[in-house]
Amino acid sequence: MASALAIGERGRGRSTPNPNVGCVIVREGCVVGRGWTQPGGRPHAEAMALEQAGAEVRGSTLYATLEPCAHDSARGPACADLIAAAKPARVVIALSDPDVRTRGRGIERLRAAGIEVLEGVCAAEAGRSMAGWLSRIERGRPYVTLKLATSLDGRIALPDGSSRWITGDAARAHAHLERARCDGILVGRGTWETDVPKLDVRLPGLEDRSSRRILLSSRHPGLVPGSTHPEALEREVRWTPEQARGDVWEVISGVEAIAALPDCNDLLIEGGAQTAASFLAADLVDRLLLYRAPILIGDGKAAIGDIGLTDLAAAHGRWTLIDTRMLGSDRLEVYERARS
Amino acid sequence: MASALAIGERGRGRSTPNPNVGCVIVREGCVVGRGWTQPGGRPHAEAMALEQAGAEVRGSTLYATLEPCAHDSARGPACADLIAAAKPARVVIALSDPDVRTRGRGIERLRAAGIEVLEGVCAAEAGRSMAGWLSRIERGRPYVTLKLATSLDGRIALPDGSSRWITGDAARAHAHLERARCDGILVGRGTWETDVPKLDVRLPGLEDRSSRRILLSSRHPGLVPGSTHPEALEREVRWTPEQARGDVWEVISGVEAIAALPDCNDLLIEGGAQTAASFLAADLVDRLLLYRAPILIGDGKAAIGDIGLTDLAAAHGRWTLIDTRMLGSDRLEVYERARS
Ligand SMILES: NC(=O)c1ccc[n+]([C@@H]2O[C@H](COP(=O)([O-])OP(=O)(O)OC[C@H]3O[C@@H](n4cnc5c(N)ncnc54)[C@H](OP(=O)(O)O)[C@@H]3O)[C@@H](O)[C@H]2O)c1
Ligand SMILES: NC(=O)c1ccc[n+]([C@@H]2O[C@H](COP(=O)([O-])OP(=O)(O)OC[C@H]3O[C@@H](n4cnc5c(N)ncnc54)[C@H](OP(=O)(O)O)[C@@H]3O)[C@@H](O)[C@H]2O)c1
Repeated sequence: MASALAIGERGRGRSTPNPNVGCVIVREGCVVGRGWTQPGGRPHAEAMALEQAGAEVRGSTLYATLEPCAHDSARGPACADLIAAAKPARVVIALSDPDVRTRGRGIERLRAAGIEVLEGVCAAEAGRSMAGWLSRIERGRPYVTLKLATSLDGRIALPDGSSRWITGDAARAHAHLERARCDGILVGRGTWETDVPKLDVRLPGLEDRSSRRILLSSRHPGLVPGSTHPEALEREVRWTPEQARGDVWEVISGVEAIAALPDCNDLLIEGGAQTAASFLAADLVDRLLLYRAPILIGDGKAAIGDIGLTDLAAAHGRWTLIDTRMLGSDRLEVYERARS
Repeated sequence: MASALAIGERGRGRSTPNPNVGCVIVREGCVVGRGWTQPGGRPHAEAMALEQAGAEVRGSTLYATLEPCAHDSARGPACADLIAAAKPARVVIALSDPDVRTRGRGIERLRAAGIEVLEGVCAAEAGRSMAGWLSRIERGRPYVTLKLATSLDGRIALPDGSSRWITGDAARAHAHLERARCDGILVGRGTWETDVPKLDVRLPGLEDRSSRRILLSSRHPGLVPGSTHPEALEREVRWTPEQARGDVWEVISGVEAIAALPDCNDLLIEGGAQTAASFLAADLVDRLLLYRAPILIGDGKAAIGDIGLTDLAAAHGRWTLIDTRMLGSDRLEVYERARS
């Protein structure tokens, strides 16, 4: 299942509207098939793994990070039926499908076909891996990650705004990997105008994984909600043709608008301080990625603006450290919002 | 040696003018004597351990975190002579003594008495344990620790100044232990006037380990450098008799004045932001104790004021993480200033 989860991560950031499922088929101790949700959501992980394994599926154990779907679609038959026909001896599932069209029916069909089914294996890890899709299903909005790159004393820049560089190469490479894992990256208008950020994935072999760019602005004259094209950027924001080249931005005018973002399981917020504060104040941040360099800055720009906190007690109990590691001389900490 | 180092820690913060040495004597696998530098610096660790072990010293192995002293003093004979007379088979030493009165002569005397001597065992750990005394000998000033208790985004208080509580019980207890390990605790006049801090050690059994209180102020009317007594506090700062009770403060008027502080191996700086910045700007901080609570504050008071940084590159390469651990839901990080 650990291997199925790892493979499922490959689809993260490009499986919408579907979840990033992973599937591994093992027969007599050998892996005979592996699959993950393909870009755009099809083929499903199970279909890909079954096709690879062919006749070897019979008598095997199939591991899937999510309950196989039980609904036919114009784009292909239900995975539960495909699996039932291929006759593995056993199917091991991490999470049951919360989608009303399946919810338990995939497992029923497998059992009806005489296949042994085990559920709940590595369910927590699977929930984390498919957090974006689950968030959309359960809360109608993407799973939101806020990224901050700070000094030990929480600064993101010197007083004059210079922030090159706070963190080192390894931390920046990791942050680019996180970009590749999300469907959309959002910045506030301040950062957008000052930094003219590209937000692309600059990692060898992953350049094509760059995500949609989303701009938060309540009142930029001339930029209407929806897609903004290079001509508008040249005209309205006075970006040079060079700066505007190839840039397409989706504009949203308030933090709540992320609920309605189509095809977005995972959303990454890359600043600035006011935008971070807006999402935090609305309690719309599910995960913090904190990259911390071993430096002190003192006076400088803060990572987060006013979040309207008036009572320290109210700040407690929200964040849990779930991962920490060194990236060169920087330290990454990952915090998850405690479920309320 | 690990055991000798642990025992040596008991003297930290009360061994001045001497180093906090630890000594363990082992014979046939059993500990027959243990000693550590006593309050005020005498008896020495070796003398205490030798007295405990008595006749058992003969043929034993004696572990000492520092080279035994070779100079007689009005307060007692040299440890090297005491050890030579007691005839252990072997002496294991972590650090050789940088004090000009001993520097290698303690080891020479032991060898001359036919005792096998091993040097340099756990030297780095011993250097850390006796960092305060070594700093005084080598640089003529105490070893300076800056303590910061912050949110994840580097805040030490809400905009209105409220800071109760950012960190939890375990972190606060640890910070009190650090107080017990230093000779003096310093705060700036801002913190002193606002918080009327007691800076005492509120840990069961360690109440008597409270340290000297030192105030940094360049221009407080009526408070002259040197000791300030309760009457002056009532008169000059308008503290109530209750607030001033028992309070004795040493006043220094600039950060460089810590060089001349008598009998101070370890100095702990507890804020505020401007005072922290003053010490950092003068490059007088050797160690950072960073207690971080898993909360976000956003707008609020920063941990560190202006340190005069104009170039990010200059901030790098100074701090190395040497320890990190969880204290309840808070995380402690200990950084050491890289030696230049
Ligand atoms: N070192 C780093 O890691 C890092 C990362 C990112 C940014 N930065 C720096 O941070 C600075 C910008 O930060 P900032 O805090 O000034 O600006 P910002 O957060 O990037 O942008 C602020 C703008 O975002 C829009 N916005 C924010 N909250 C909103 C809400 N709830 N609804 C609608 N619109 C909202 C508003 O745009 P409208 O005014 O158009 O409505 C607002 O003026 C730049 O200097 C940038 O270089 C540094
Ligand atoms: N949450 C926490 O962990 C925490 C900890 C500590 C403090 N605090 C808060 O921090 C606030 C005070 O911080 P702050 O930054 O305003 O004040 P501060 O650093 O405590 O005190 C500033 C004063 O210290 C003296 N000083 C600083 N650098 C000096 C230098 N180089 N030479 C001589 N004197 C120097 C000056 O006193 P003179 O003006 O007399 O010359 C200066 O006005 C308080 O509200 C306190 O509650 C919070």
